[in-house]
Amino acid sequence: MADGADRTGGEATGDRRARKRRQTRRRLLDAARTRLAEVGLDALAVADITARADVGTGTFYNYFTGLDDTVAALIEEEVEALGRRIDALTATMADPAEVIAVSLRHLMSTAASDPVWGGFIVRLGIAHPSLVAALGPRASRDMQRGIDEGRFDIPNLPMAEEVAFGSVLSAIHAHQRSPVPDRDPTVDLAAYNLRLLGLTPAEAAEVCARPLPALPAAPERAV
Amino acid sequence: MADGADRTGGEATGDRRARKRRQTRRRLLDAARTRLAEVGLDALAVADITARADVGTGTFYNYFTGLDDTVAALIEEEVEALGRRIDALTATMADPAEVIAVSLRHLMSTAASDPVWGGFIVRLGIAHPSLVAALGPRASRDMQRGIDEGRFDIPNLPMAEEVAFGSVLSAIHAHQRSPVPDRDPTVDLAAYNLRLLGLTPAEAAEVCARPLPALPAAPERAV
Repeated sequence: MADGADRTGGEATGDRRARKRRQTRRRLLDAARTRLAEVGLDALAVADITARADVGTGTFYNYFTGLDDTVAALIEEEVEALGRRIDALTATMADPAEVIAVSLRHLMSTAASDPVWGGFIVRLGIAHPSLVAALGPRASRDMQRGIDEGRFDIPNLPMAEEVAFGSVLSAIHAHQRSPVPDRDPTVDLAAYNLRLLGLTPAEAAEVCARPLPALPAAPERAV
Repeated sequence: MADGADRTGGEATGDRRARKRRQTRRRLLDAARTRLAEVGLDALAVADITARADVGTGTFYNYFTGLDDTVAALIEEEVEALGRRIDALTATMADPAEVIAVSLRHLMSTAASDPVWGGFIVRLGIAHPSLVAALGPRASRDMQRGIDEGRFDIPNLPMAEEVAFGSVLSAIHAHQRSPVPDRDPTVDLAAYNLRLLGLTPAEAAEVCARPLPALPAAPERAV
């Protein structure tokens, strides 16, 4: 008999099972996120996550191969969710330079203030595929628009994307380690990146001095 | 009796022991470097290193706590050695922008062509202390000179250093993964960084179009 598709209510049972699986996975991810905020990445343990999610150890391993896997799933989800909120905020902006500046400022600001982002992004590093997959296409789209509209001067677009990407991670790391007094790191990071894209220092400073609009609220997580 | 300092030639014995220790460590590091070039980081094994260096496993652990430790020592040595060669090449250059461009071009070029650098630098990532320790003070010195001579416009020097650092690692990673045809990645990376430091795109392109002087030869390794 095919999974959850018989004549005695099996389809409903299948739906229920799938929903229950999603809920359990969600509970494990939420527990992992909470524990991360409490104890940090180095002290994170499967036992803490399962205790908080109120499931057995075996259940955990039905969903994840281990801690690294859990953390990767969490990051993928978080990066994508932030990407969508930034997309919503910048979609109607008239100036491609402001799109880049606002995106980078919120990316850095979130990473500097959020335990999941802040704890991981530097350790994950530049080669982590979930970061690249979520951020790469957005950077590419936003930079291409600036080229098309004559606002940017970018001889090698893939490298410009990579340089921007590396600069964000490195700036977050630097800010975590030793913040520079009296400087808004999000402004400095964005301004350096606009220079990189071809704006003069004065043009870059002007764009980054504009007020930073707030991100739309994070949506409730789908279960 | 104090180590190697008695009246019957113990000092000479101590010297000899110290020299022998340095030689063994050198042999292990050279073996690790060679194996890395042959099999890559993921397949590197202590047994291969000790076989190549012709020492026992116990001897290996007299010098290193494990593979990570060996690799860290190798990187520290390599980064510092390259830093000194770049220093020698750029010490007499008249233009601070050219110092930055030549340094970044050789850094990226070495990483793109050398098995130790190329295999590791991306994995080590932006937070690795031996990279930061070797490259940070040099970047700081070279950028400060450009500020002092009015060539650079850098509102937040520590962040400029971090952005440059992150951009180098990310550019190497990008180039390893998917080189862009018909572009010299070292030129593009250097030009982006000069823009970041305040040069216009045209000024940056001019500096990076100058011929790249060759590095002085690597010195023989001290034993």
